[in-house]
Amino acid sequence: MKKIGVLTSGGDAPGMNAAVRAVVRKAIYEGMEVAGIFNGYEGLIQGKIELLQLGSVGDIIQRGGTMLRSARSPEFMTEEGRQEALKQLKAHGIEGLVIIGGDGSFKGAAELVKLGVPCACVPATIDNDITGTQFTIGFDSALNTVIDAIDKIRDTATSHERTFIIEVMGRDAGDLALWSGLAGGAETILIPEVEYDLEDIITRLKSGSGRGKKHSIIVVAEGVMSGTALSDSLKREAGIETRVSVLGHIQRGGSPSARDRVIASQYGARAVEVLKEGKRGVAIGMQNHTVIDYDLAIVFKRSDTKKDEELYKLSKELSI
Amino acid sequence: MKKIGVLTSGGDAPGMNAAVRAVVRKAIYEGMEVAGIFNGYEGLIQGKIELLQLGSVGDIIQRGGTMLRSARSPEFMTEEGRQEALKQLKAHGIEGLVIIGGDGSFKGAAELVKLGVPCACVPATIDNDITGTQFTIGFDSALNTVIDAIDKIRDTATSHERTFIIEVMGRDAGDLALWSGLAGGAETILIPEVEYDLEDIITRLKSGSGRGKKHSIIVVAEGVMSGTALSDSLKREAGIETRVSVLGHIQRGGSPSARDRVIASQYGARAVEVLKEGKRGVAIGMQNHTVIDYDLAIVFKRSDTKKDEELYKLSKELSI
Amino acid sequence: MKKIGVLTSGGDAPGMNAAVRAVVRKAIYEGMEVAGIFNGYEGLIQGKIELLQLGSVGDIIQRGGTMLRSARSPEFMTEEGRQEALKQLKAHGIEGLVIIGGDGSFKGAAELVKLGVPCACVPATIDNDITGTQFTIGFDSALNTVIDAIDKIRDTATSHERTFIIEVMGRDAGDLALWSGLAGGAETILIPEVEYDLEDIITRLKSGSGRGKKHSIIVVAEGVMSGTALSDSLKREAGIETRVSVLGHIQRGGSPSARDRVIASQYGARAVEVLKEGKRGVAIGMQNHTVIDYDLAIVFKRSDTKKDEELYKLSKELSI
Amino acid sequence: MKKIGVLTSGGDAPGMNAAVRAVVRKAIYEGMEVAGIFNGYEGLIQGKIELLQLGSVGDIIQRGGTMLRSARSPEFMTEEGRQEALKQLKAHGIEGLVIIGGDGSFKGAAELVKLGVPCACVPATIDNDITGTQFTIGFDSALNTVIDAIDKIRDTATSHERTFIIEVMGRDAGDLALWSGLAGGAETILIPEVEYDLEDIITRLKSGSGRGKKHSIIVVAEGVMSGTALSDSLKREAGIETRVSVLGHIQRGGSPSARDRVIASQYGARAVEVLKEGKRGVAIGMQNHTVIDYDLAIVFKRSDTKKDEELYKLSKELSI
Repeated sequence: MKKIGVLTSGGDAPGMNAAVRAVVRKAIYEGMEVAGIFNGYEGLIQGKIELLQLGSVGDIIQRGGTMLRSARSPEFMTEEGRQEALKQLKAHGIEGLVIIGGDGSFKGAAELVKLGVPCACVPATIDNDITGTQFTIGFDSALNTVIDAIDKIRDTATSHERTFIIEVMGRDAGDLALWSGLAGGAETILIPEVEYDLEDIITRLKSGSGRGKKHSIIVVAEGVMSGTALSDSLKREAGIETRVSVLGHIQRGGSPSARDRVIASQYGARAVEVLKEGKRGVAIGMQNHTVIDYDLAIVFKRSDTKKDEELYKLSKELSI
Repeated sequence: MKKIGVLTSGGDAPGMNAAVRAVVRKAIYEGMEVAGIFNGYEGLIQGKIELLQLGSVGDIIQRGGTMLRSARSPEFMTEEGRQEALKQLKAHGIEGLVIIGGDGSFKGAAELVKLGVPCACVPATIDNDITGTQFTIGFDSALNTVIDAIDKIRDTATSHERTFIIEVMGRDAGDLALWSGLAGGAETILIPEVEYDLEDIITRLKSGSGRGKKHSIIVVAEGVMSGTALSDSLKREAGIETRVSVLGHIQRGGSPSARDRVIASQYGARAVEVLKEGKRGVAIGMQNHTVIDYDLAIVFKRSDTKKDEELYKLSKELSI
Repeated sequence: MKKIGVLTSGGDAPGMNAAVRAVVRKAIYEGMEVAGIFNGYEGLIQGKIELLQLGSVGDIIQRGGTMLRSARSPEFMTEEGRQEALKQLKAHGIEGLVIIGGDGSFKGAAELVKLGVPCACVPATIDNDITGTQFTIGFDSALNTVIDAIDKIRDTATSHERTFIIEVMGRDAGDLALWSGLAGGAETILIPEVEYDLEDIITRLKSGSGRGKKHSIIVVAEGVMSGTALSDSLKREAGIETRVSVLGHIQRGGSPSARDRVIASQYGARAVEVLKEGKRGVAIGMQNHTVIDYDLAIVFKRSDTKKDEELYKLSKELSI
Repeated sequence: MKKIGVLTSGGDAPGMNAAVRAVVRKAIYEGMEVAGIFNGYEGLIQGKIELLQLGSVGDIIQRGGTMLRSARSPEFMTEEGRQEALKQLKAHGIEGLVIIGGDGSFKGAAELVKLGVPCACVPATIDNDITGTQFTIGFDSALNTVIDAIDKIRDTATSHERTFIIEVMGRDAGDLALWSGLAGGAETILIPEVEYDLEDIITRLKSGSGRGKKHSIIVVAEGVMSGTALSDSLKREAGIETRVSVLGHIQRGGSPSARDRVIASQYGARAVEVLKEGKRGVAIGMQNHTVIDYDLAIVFKRSDTKKDEELYKLSKELSI
């Protein structure tokens, strides 16, 4: 393989730039050319493609967002769009692709694989919800952003003896809520994977309050319900007053954490290696502290994992 | 004066602890005793009062919130409540009070002054809206929290070429929105002191977009309208899509900035001095880089200042 | 087991407080009493022991350092000292101990195990150098502190087109230097596990400079040599001017990262469980994203691991 | 004036980029062209000059360092060098200059003024040591970096009951040491403006220790003596053990604080205004919360100010 392309797609995540940098540097190290495809699949169709050099990725390892930008592409959802993408790849002599993004982006890659384009997919999403890997790029950074927010809100919660509900991202996946709730010392954590029990939440709040504990932090993943809906329920069912903070988009941004920069570097470099080795449709990931690659098909067979249950159980035990 | 009391009241602000520390240490330095009054005026009425020592304020200069806690006190709004407070002060031998908080808290102090209690008021509110002082404790910390959030959101705005609306605190005062918007490089800033012009906002967004600038940051103070309301208007009037982020309670918390710790130390110490000097109803503040004290009455004659207009004009010129 | 003790020993590491919190809360959850032993083994000998409650560990999960404090104990190195420690444990009815610290602290635990005291050892050291576990508490936080410093220094390096040498902690272990160098985008990384080659460093600096790259970051673990010694060598051997920054003690402090808080919670809770299960001399750790416990003896058979070599190789490839 | 130039010179300071951005945007707002001069006076002599557009300064307000880079210029110290600089200015049609830097950079500007080049000087140095202005760009950011370091070191100092000496920048000016010491809750602060008294330091350390306070923070400005020298003195004269941390170059880097971004924006814009108004050799600064401009000659008549003494006195009173 003499020339590969790299693009970022889907919601941005801290560490995407570090992954792009690793792809570019590793490819050049391996004697390949690298083309940067701007604005995701949309830009691929439009031919927004530029050759990248070592200098193109200087001073970006520490930056949030993605220098290649990202975009939704309704056009790529169509057969015509994908044929256009294929034409562009051929026109630019790109023989393989590194796709950096979440599972939506991986689905696009799977379509390209069907059309004969070798793709290596690098998981980058703050939700940590890609089957087959223990960690995605961006999760650790988002986690640190969330606990920084929880620490700040705790100052007010303690000073005013109030209960705060903090709504964090996570439509289907509760990792961000669970880890941040545990790390933030939250008294109650609501995640999509476990049905919540309003009675239990009320009992816990009241028992804490009975013991003289007058402030409390509840972390709720947006996939369970909105912070406001939970606040309304607590007020209606038990007369409990709460304040709501919706963390929102700050969770996606910021300089990546050390760990995200390291795994982004590892994933990006491995993606180049697997293309060089002739693999055609693989995802990159981490298992047992070791970088792995595995069949893209595995990503789409989503299944719950047992580890979350242990962490969830722990969060309950420590928040007595 | 042999014994003074100190309390925090109103919304918490980073640096309140640094002010409490300064009051305690300065008072002990001057040979006085200091009583900590917990839970604001409510705690004063209830006699939640404890003698504080040097060790009581160890390791708190860097903490957000307030170790003395804060609370609303409807009871203190009544004559009976205030008489009860007076009784407690006498019972504990407290001859003067340092009140740390915003203008609501200062009104409470003014009532106590009428009853013969010498009070020195230390301005602590993230809104920076106390007449007579150029800076309040907490404003600089909140500002840094807001620009940290803007920097994070800019990562996503740039990566996805989107326009973001960021709603910050400030019901009547626009300092937080104005300073943070300027420091965050926002393209548009809406503050309560200046009537906004939706046409102008739309024109600016469209002209930027015409020049190839595809992302934009709008900072709006909550006192103007909610971020969601602004987003709806832009959509309805001009078909412009925006994302909204409401920063909320994170703005009140966190470790105080260096500057807030320094002015909190200065204000707290001066408050003790003015009580020692026999002053009875004064506010502490900063003018021309110098700590001042002035009649409490000045605080309640709110008036707009000219400097904001210059900063506002600057923000317009730099965001062409 | 009805009552256990917990102590922190050796150099402090961010996350120690989160581990103490987890020990206390889990023990109470399991119906046990917990005694806090202050000032490490020294305090154990002196009987600085207090019963801890849920409230004793409130609001500490986010704090650096250790609320139980730490100290060296020459006395505990003697047979008499250990007998005295044993007496104290009996006097306070403490039936098992959780020891939070590094391998030096674990050696102390091994001595107590010989005397019949069940001990569960929780690895907490920024060096990440405990055999048998992939991660120690504090490593991730220190890593983030180091990359924050590298990011800052890079600003100056770029602005002035200079080469900076950054000396980080790590006497025998290079993990902190390797990970931070990789995450910080360092051009050269020197770790104790790999013999360095001054010629190679000089060649790389000169080739970068030949390509127009006028600034460079070198990360060196203190165990290899001091930053100043390296700077002198580069000057003497090749006339290369460098600036040196010794990060020093800031690496040990600060609020723990999200990840350190989570593993500290997991390790602390597991330590209580293994004591309850009747184990007598075990270390707690992480393998394959799962909390494990293993014989304390394994810790003392230090051996190099293969993974570091891969990360080291990656760091070389990406810094062409 | 139709075209101005802008350069940064001397040690870099956080906020320089925000000042460059303001110069460029304000000049374009005023209908002028702006040339960026790279690598300071050295680059001016070498003609490293490029026209800057609005887009050239996009996304830099939050970055440390300086995009225009900085360098020493021995050549500019000579008459020939300055004549060469003059030629370049004429060749590029540059009619006025904005110089962003410290007093060394201002001296260069004064030479150019003598040769007929209108110059407006913007004070940017972390030392806050420019006569005529209450604040320089970079001081507030460096201050926050230093207190972040002090907060981290305090964790270890408290946990191990040790005394730490923290050496901060400041050869002739003690502002950084004094403000950071006060904000960091240091027990002892040594600044160049006040002769230190070793006896007094020892007495304070011993009295604190006598009261049961077993840890202590000493902040020393490098201009007084090195941290190591102080540590040796304390050991030799009083047998007091201390640890030393030299903060070094991290003090110059990092994203600028909100305040530094605001004053950089104000100063940069004013610099353009004064050139437009026809002024020829002025410095920009802040007095009484208001941006001012004043004769460059005032900068070179350095004199001590009274306010520092008050802050110094306060630091003594609060660290009893």
